[in-house]
Amino acid sequence: MVNQENIHPGFDKLVSRAEREKFLNQRSKVVWMTGLSGSGKTTIAAGLERKLLENGFFAQVLDGDNIRSGINNNLGFSLEDRLENIRRIAEVAKLYLNSGIITICTFISPTIEIRKYAEDIIGSDDFLEIFVDAPLEICEKRDVKGLYQKARKGEIKDFTGITSPYEPPISPTLTLFSGKEPVQVSVQIAFDFIEPLIRK
Amino acid sequence: MVNQENIHPGFDKLVSRAEREKFLNQRSKVVWMTGLSGSGKTTIAAGLERKLLENGFFAQVLDGDNIRSGINNNLGFSLEDRLENIRRIAEVAKLYLNSGIITICTFISPTIEIRKYAEDIIGSDDFLEIFVDAPLEICEKRDVKGLYQKARKGEIKDFTGITSPYEPPISPTLTLFSGKEPVQVSVQIAFDFIEPLIRK
Repeated sequence: MVNQENIHPGFDKLVSRAEREKFLNQRSKVVWMTGLSGSGKTTIAAGLERKLLENGFFAQVLDGDNIRSGINNNLGFSLEDRLENIRRIAEVAKLYLNSGIITICTFISPTIEIRKYAEDIIGSDDFLEIFVDAPLEICEKRDVKGLYQKARKGEIKDFTGITSPYEPPISPTLTLFSGKEPVQVSVQIAFDFIEPLIRK
Repeated sequence: MVNQENIHPGFDKLVSRAEREKFLNQRSKVVWMTGLSGSGKTTIAAGLERKLLENGFFAQVLDGDNIRSGINNNLGFSLEDRLENIRRIAEVAKLYLNSGIITICTFISPTIEIRKYAEDIIGSDDFLEIFVDAPLEICEKRDVKGLYQKARKGEIKDFTGITSPYEPPISPTLTLFSGKEPVQVSVQIAFDFIEPLIRK
């Protein structure tokens, strides 16, 4: 059964990614930040986003706040829903990428498989994997959100690093040692690394 | 059961919509185009997107091509899936809106209820409804995609205008008479109408 909205002719050409990149005077990429809860992903992503804009680049962070509260607000935490969560995040990131925007995704994304799934949707050429590498002891000691304590008490199921595994990237594009260095240093290192890749 | 990715502190402030609008030197809005298959929505949207960029505005069309092939590629055409289709489109449009981008959505969206659903997600202040109003006879005569013929033969289920109703907007923000006027005229009318609303 054919559906009317599912068939499209090719004659109405939208503005291409290349034209958008020219408009914004940048090359678009997806920066995918992975790491434990409390490793500093969101703080670094927010700092990087701001630094990019201050330097004339147009960037957008996709994180739990704007994704889980909106497009993914009907997903739970079953394995199936976790995969669908990552699929939709990757698809939104791909839309932004094709809009010419530097897109920073910040999600624990604990397994090699799940990050590979995102990379396959986005495309390897545009996928920059940043490992936000803080040791579990430090993340747990920080425990900004009090989640590790809850996890230790058994109040949170499948908590990465405690009751479910975190698989570090084998060959990330960049590693930030956020357990050792101040946030601003991590932000600067990320910016300096990315800048040549997004500059026109 | 609390999940670790679902809780976020408020201290990592992302770049706001207002800052992004300032960066792009525009006000963001969602332009929602509704109308029959063949009414010219996609062609007008593509023309409007290009005209906006040529005039220094950053805009993005969301249409069947980039939505159904990606974020919504696991949805069918049951009533439930049609609602979820619109929900996700509206949520993506809202993300783009909050990124400061003028977002043009072009979907048949045949009922008042379904468009209200989108408007409620996006927010009435930012939702501009454009009725692309070409009479059924003209859309069917054009039949660019051969879909009306298929629908008449019973090969397409629930085809808007033939076997399922199209409810025109009661008080759209703007109506384009695309059955009478050339595409370029509709594009110009839409641009002239929108421009004062998106200009800083």
